[in-house]
Amino acid sequence: MVALRAQIRDEPMAADHKIDVSRRSLMAGAALAAMASAAPMAAQTAPKPTPKQMPGIHKHKVGSIDLLSITDGTVSFPRLDNFVSNVPADEVARTLEASFLPTDAITLTFTPVVLNTSGRLVVIDTGVGEAAFIQSNGVGGQFRNNLAAAGYSVADVDQVLITHFHADHIGGLVTADNKPAFPNAQIYVPAAEYAYWMDSSNMPKTPSEAMVANFKRARRIFGVLGSTVKKFDGGVELAPGVTSMSTHGHTPGHSSFIVTSGADKVIIQGDVTTHPALFIRHPNWHGATDMDPVQAEQTRRRLYDQAVAEKTVIYGFHFPFPALGHLAREDDGYRLVSVMWNSAP
Amino acid sequence: MVALRAQIRDEPMAADHKIDVSRRSLMAGAALAAMASAAPMAAQTAPKPTPKQMPGIHKHKVGSIDLLSITDGTVSFPRLDNFVSNVPADEVARTLEASFLPTDAITLTFTPVVLNTSGRLVVIDTGVGEAAFIQSNGVGGQFRNNLAAAGYSVADVDQVLITHFHADHIGGLVTADNKPAFPNAQIYVPAAEYAYWMDSSNMPKTPSEAMVANFKRARRIFGVLGSTVKKFDGGVELAPGVTSMSTHGHTPGHSSFIVTSGADKVIIQGDVTTHPALFIRHPNWHGATDMDPVQAEQTRRRLYDQAVAEKTVIYGFHFPFPALGHLAREDDGYRLVSVMWNSAP
Repeated sequence: MVALRAQIRDEPMAADHKIDVSRRSLMAGAALAAMASAAPMAAQTAPKPTPKQMPGIHKHKVGSIDLLSITDGTVSFPRLDNFVSNVPADEVARTLEASFLPTDAITLTFTPVVLNTSGRLVVIDTGVGEAAFIQSNGVGGQFRNNLAAAGYSVADVDQVLITHFHADHIGGLVTADNKPAFPNAQIYVPAAEYAYWMDSSNMPKTPSEAMVANFKRARRIFGVLGSTVKKFDGGVELAPGVTSMSTHGHTPGHSSFIVTSGADKVIIQGDVTTHPALFIRHPNWHGATDMDPVQAEQTRRRLYDQAVAEKTVIYGFHFPFPALGHLAREDDGYRLVSVMWNSAP
Repeated sequence: MVALRAQIRDEPMAADHKIDVSRRSLMAGAALAAMASAAPMAAQTAPKPTPKQMPGIHKHKVGSIDLLSITDGTVSFPRLDNFVSNVPADEVARTLEASFLPTDAITLTFTPVVLNTSGRLVVIDTGVGEAAFIQSNGVGGQFRNNLAAAGYSVADVDQVLITHFHADHIGGLVTADNKPAFPNAQIYVPAAEYAYWMDSSNMPKTPSEAMVANFKRARRIFGVLGSTVKKFDGGVELAPGVTSMSTHGHTPGHSSFIVTSGADKVIIQGDVTTHPALFIRHPNWHGATDMDPVQAEQTRRRLYDQAVAEKTVIYGFHFPFPALGHLAREDDGYRLVSVMWNSAP
């Protein structure tokens, strides 16, 4: 490595004089000796460590509303054979490969939304939170810190809107010590979602341990939040320019939000699709976490057909950061075309 | 807005009780009066302004080398009729539309690379710089500040490698007051590029004012940097794991860099393609800034065919942030599939 550095730093390379690597290696010692005092570089400084990954924070304008995408991190699922319920694992692997994604695990990214609308700060979905509801290997649960990096504290948040009651969406509603994580915020949840998970008669019908855990988690979190939580149906304006829309299927009360300001519009779709490379490309594939997969597919196609026709921007909790894209038709499915990164201040 | 806020904050919305917006409007005044004291929200605080757009900084691992994408901003070109030299403006507009991009202007993003390789800090291309070589309307020229946001100062940079001598790539080599912008860095430029722009016999052959400006700018910048600048040819390892590759066509000496560590590899392609939505999709389109457009197309196809075959990650100075993607074949051209955002610390 010393010899290599010597070549790089000290060897003259004339414009009209091509030097191949082997010859350069032979010359390196001599060049080092000859040019040590004439080297134009600064004295060798201690290696600087690379910074940690920066918080993923991106601002997108929706008319007069600012939409911030703020990453919560990712969680990886090691098994390909139980992520899609109606397709074999090798077909899942082929689709991941076609998107240049690893096939040894399926990684889902989590990106809560923060809206600044008429001076109100509105968070949509919360990430996995501090309570380790999902094994994230330290990569998930960044939202609270990343919100701070964007200049806001949890105390600044006026409203939290929830799409559905899976752990990566509601986990951040409470702290590790079971207190409300957004102390000054009014929490809004889909009425049908709340009714389903709070009805104890639904629990025995559930097929898996994971579902039982979902019930217990929801009860724990909404036990902490108590009766202050407000429930909404579809078609209600919950904050200036932010209207709920029923998109049931992924869960019984799964909801989305339409954000409009002037001529601009973004649909916050929650989990109408979870992993975009799988279910946008193949809307007929059924996610193992889609509780009513047939209804989920109908909802997906209805929303996406409309988005294609109207060229609507869709925000997906699990879409590649900054989680914003347009949809184009491709074969029997769709293709996600990410929105260009906005560098304007 | 007061009435709307009252609805949002204070109206009870029962799970079993769908309330439509018109009824809610009528109820708002009464609800406000009835619930003012019982509202579970914090006292109304002053609206918090949305933060400025965060610096675009993203870390990608190439084996043991850290590759940081750091945005310099964007520049928009208002005319569609002189951006592509062999295709009419309406065809350019249709292709932009198919990528859901505006058609009133063409926006190019600028993303210099910072490599941390064996403790050395290597910058590849510099952005437009402070000297207003390009009219960026205040959006370009962010690299120096964004580098600081990543935890580095310009004095930490050990080497700067240049792909070619267009303003958005070399503009940041000098400060506004004509000093070297990276005071401790050894600057490396393609030998053929340096030879072309420094040969005054080439200037009278140039067809446009823009080209004359390019010559004058290059001479001004390399006049400041003087004889310390080193020139390289293709196939030379300039920093640990960073090897030059001749990719002439866009300019006479245009060069790329292959970054390898272990089994990992990224090709830093400079301007083999400028706007990805245009020239990756249509590699036979000729950019107006491609100085030898036939050679540029050959270079593009050769590099991209190899990238498709080997599934190589390509880094493009003008690709959507974080400027990293794979290429897939599509019709007679290619499609860029962006690399998933990496949230791991």
